[in-house]
Amino acid sequence: MAPGEPDFIKALTEAVNVFSRERDWAPFHSPKNLSMALAVEAAELMEHFQWLREQQSATLSPEKKDAVAQELADVLIYLVRLASQLDIDLESAAWSKLDLNRQKYPIEKARGTAKKYDEL
Amino acid sequence: MAPGEPDFIKALTEAVNVFSRERDWAPFHSPKNLSMALAVEAAELMEHFQWLREQQSATLSPEKKDAVAQELADVLIYLVRLASQLDIDLESAAWSKLDLNRQKYPIEKARGTAKKYDEL
Amino acid sequence: MAPGEPDFIKALTEAVNVFSRERDWAPFHSPKNLSMALAVEAAELMEHFQWLREQQSATLSPEKKDAVAQELADVLIYLVRLASQLDIDLESAAWSKLDLNRQKYPIEKARGTAKKYDEL
Amino acid sequence: MAPGEPDFIKALTEAVNVFSRERDWAPFHSPKNLSMALAVEAAELMEHFQWLREQQSATLSPEKKDAVAQELADVLIYLVRLASQLDIDLESAAWSKLDLNRQKYPIEKARGTAKKYDEL
Repeated sequence: MAPGEPDFIKALTEAVNVFSRERDWAPFHSPKNLSMALAVEAAELMEHFQWLREQQSATLSPEKKDAVAQELADVLIYLVRLASQLDIDLESAAWSKLDLNRQKYPIEKARGTAKKYDEL
Repeated sequence: MAPGEPDFIKALTEAVNVFSRERDWAPFHSPKNLSMALAVEAAELMEHFQWLREQQSATLSPEKKDAVAQELADVLIYLVRLASQLDIDLESAAWSKLDLNRQKYPIEKARGTAKKYDEL
Repeated sequence: MAPGEPDFIKALTEAVNVFSRERDWAPFHSPKNLSMALAVEAAELMEHFQWLREQQSATLSPEKKDAVAQELADVLIYLVRLASQLDIDLESAAWSKLDLNRQKYPIEKARGTAKKYDEL
Repeated sequence: MAPGEPDFIKALTEAVNVFSRERDWAPFHSPKNLSMALAVEAAELMEHFQWLREQQSATLSPEKKDAVAQELADVLIYLVRLASQLDIDLESAAWSKLDLNRQKYPIEKARGTAKKYDEL
């Protein structure tokens, strides 16, 4: 990232907020509703994979990959909007959670297993 | 963001990839499985809001807000991991999708309504 | 229900199984995949409500109600198919769970609150 | 089903409605909120399968199968409650949808493929 270039999450948040403001969508964008919209987009993303073998899901056609990229983007757009409406700093939340995950999943115990932390 | 500071999405992606590599989790992290995990986290996020009035969902207690921030982080962590496994550039996908949304939801037609673009 | 009429869940399960067999869909219908399909249908159902006020969600137009009924049906169809593939008796599972819920949510403690059982 | 035995869906609906009434939960049980709760339960069901191979998902341990049966029950319980709040007849909705699916997925075209009806 070049010096002076705005931080991506902040820039996207600002753009999404402007987009919503221009359309007077604030009345619809309660955190409750945004959490629903985010879950709906996550399901649309997942729908692309539901009948694929795991291996197939890693080798998508260019058209499919494009469609999936759009769904990833939808999830991210609602995510930054929701964080903004709740005044949550996504970046520090992500770093904190990753730290917590390092504690919940110690390397020696978690290696090679998909068990949940409370079953390790 | 200070000059020379790494881009957040790239830095988080790298950290999550290292985290996964240290635990030999690649065999579990097919795009198919990651899309499921992301949808599960989106539902856990939504669970915090399911019985709240919309207005209540905008005024969370500090404890609730912390818990919600962790769920937002979980969604973001799986999102960057999934994008990485599919070799999709999340940042450019988000900007492209926002452009597309500007076309699908023209300001004059979309103002004040929550109708889907194909019903505008 | 008239004497001799087949039980609905069993009849629907049989019809869905025949439907799937005629199309050779068994290879796609692993419990894993069916759980994804069910979650996708649940999200499509929810999408109808995401921007509505709670009160609006209780007074749907006939067209909307029809569309919602179809989504409810989709969820039920995948539910009976998944139960069948796992050899789970949905009816007895439902009665057992309702019994369990009676214990987890005693009337005196749970009245008028949406708290989870572990917070009562 | 023995003569005179009440229809399962109707009996379960009645039991769930009584359960909710005893706890004064009607104010929480708008269709909007119930659709969220149903989607959350569908995700909890899916979580059991997210890191399993498809084949593993078909051969669950008795403990896992019990846990999955409880999640299936949760989905069904919210499904009948939601249908009841919307005054939708689940049984006829299911038969209608299955009829529609027979038209959307003709045997000759749909055999052995997981393509969506609009791609057949």
